[in-house]
Amino acid sequence: MKRSDRLVSLTNYFLENPKQHTSLPYFADLYEAAKSSISEDLVIIDRVLQQEGLGHLQSVAGAAGGVKYIPDFSKGKSNLFIDELCHTLEDPSRILPGGYLYMSDILGDPKMVKQIGRVLAAAFSSLEIDVVMTVATKGIPLAYAVASFLDVPVVIVRRDPKVTEGSSVSINYVSGSSRKIQTMVLPKRSLQDGANVCIVDDFMKAGGTITGMTSLLEEFNANVKAIGVLAEADDEEDERVVENYISLVKIKNVDMKQKQIQVLPGTIVNSN
Amino acid sequence: MKRSDRLVSLTNYFLENPKQHTSLPYFADLYEAAKSSISEDLVIIDRVLQQEGLGHLQSVAGAAGGVKYIPDFSKGKSNLFIDELCHTLEDPSRILPGGYLYMSDILGDPKMVKQIGRVLAAAFSSLEIDVVMTVATKGIPLAYAVASFLDVPVVIVRRDPKVTEGSSVSINYVSGSSRKIQTMVLPKRSLQDGANVCIVDDFMKAGGTITGMTSLLEEFNANVKAIGVLAEADDEEDERVVENYISLVKIKNVDMKQKQIQVLPGTIVNSN
Repeated sequence: MKRSDRLVSLTNYFLENPKQHTSLPYFADLYEAAKSSISEDLVIIDRVLQQEGLGHLQSVAGAAGGVKYIPDFSKGKSNLFIDELCHTLEDPSRILPGGYLYMSDILGDPKMVKQIGRVLAAAFSSLEIDVVMTVATKGIPLAYAVASFLDVPVVIVRRDPKVTEGSSVSINYVSGSSRKIQTMVLPKRSLQDGANVCIVDDFMKAGGTITGMTSLLEEFNANVKAIGVLAEADDEEDERVVENYISLVKIKNVDMKQKQIQVLPGTIVNSN
Repeated sequence: MKRSDRLVSLTNYFLENPKQHTSLPYFADLYEAAKSSISEDLVIIDRVLQQEGLGHLQSVAGAAGGVKYIPDFSKGKSNLFIDELCHTLEDPSRILPGGYLYMSDILGDPKMVKQIGRVLAAAFSSLEIDVVMTVATKGIPLAYAVASFLDVPVVIVRRDPKVTEGSSVSINYVSGSSRKIQTMVLPKRSLQDGANVCIVDDFMKAGGTITGMTSLLEEFNANVKAIGVLAEADDEEDERVVENYISLVKIKNVDMKQKQIQVLPGTIVNSN
């Protein structure tokens, strides 16, 4: 196969298989090319990925040597995306009764969801994460988007057990904002003992749901390595029960009477 | 930018933006290259995508001319993937009490989910689809995977209304297998009147849930253009209430005593 064709094929391969180690001889066999030619291809792909702020190829030296694609999203691109997101969310027609904000259109757009996942995954790229966890329902697409860039599975916590998931562990917790007792359930099979977990959700108010997930994880001896949310409510009245989290945007001052909202970049802009 | 670099950048662009029309002058400006050079790049990318069974680039002629990437998945690759899936699902340790099958590990693997979405989207690629619809919870990742290849949004039907979604339309329906009355809710804002809808779900038994979604769609004057499920239960006792659907696999003869299951390719192998 010619270099030009190989470049297209290889680019597709790396984008489809983030964080997966592949040996040079594998590519040499696949494309019937010399290892030195493959190495030159990889230099080109690495350069373009870096230029476009999409990550880089990491070489692994030695006998079992090879290469893997480490996805990233440059700080500049992340900030641009977050600014646009703030602008989109500040539309007053999004205000719902009770001071909530309509975001289902954003969470329903696969391209948007992928970008949000890319930004969060980039913020967590230096951490050792075994699994992404979320609670049904709205956080699910975001959790998959983050997990696909980290190349790890997703586990979904439910409010009610399902027969199709086998035996499960459940906990009761007190919701942060409503102060009601709620239940969370996770199938026993879904998490290894001692796993390193990244919690992802769409929205955080006082943080009760995330605290609930943290308590549930203790039952599995799992470690919470990272917490990422799309939006947090910046209410000064409510005391936040969660610390050390990454939010993309902060929703401030939802004024139902004046039909005004203020949406600011979240904690992510201050992270590393 | 040199051809080699452009090929990497363009490949990434098309994979990230399926079904999106882009003009040649846009690329010529972006890469500071002649339109004829870009055209040659596109020939190479089209050839490799077709060789790898991943779709093709479609040229749009005329003054507003340009190109778009039409994702596909070749019949051969689809069938290979489905055979592997059948084999994975036939593992007797998946049998749960009640004759259900544990599939959460497959539905929790973003790469698996993406492939399932690719196979379903390829089966629907000739249809005009405006939106993918699913019901919470397990079908959600599959719905996003299908929608990302079709470049359309996802709407999620819930069992209970949520304040964060505004006013909604709800229906009651009779579940196919349990014969219980159930409720389905869809936010009013989430679907345009007369939309062409593709229904996606993880599992179909008698088909009551999908019939429920169909009834709900009637309230929005929407058209059901396609129905796709990962697995269907092939029970001869239950009468199927849904016709014209695509399933990837058929689960037959779950024998709890003998610890045996038979999993066969679904209706997709007989579709065009």
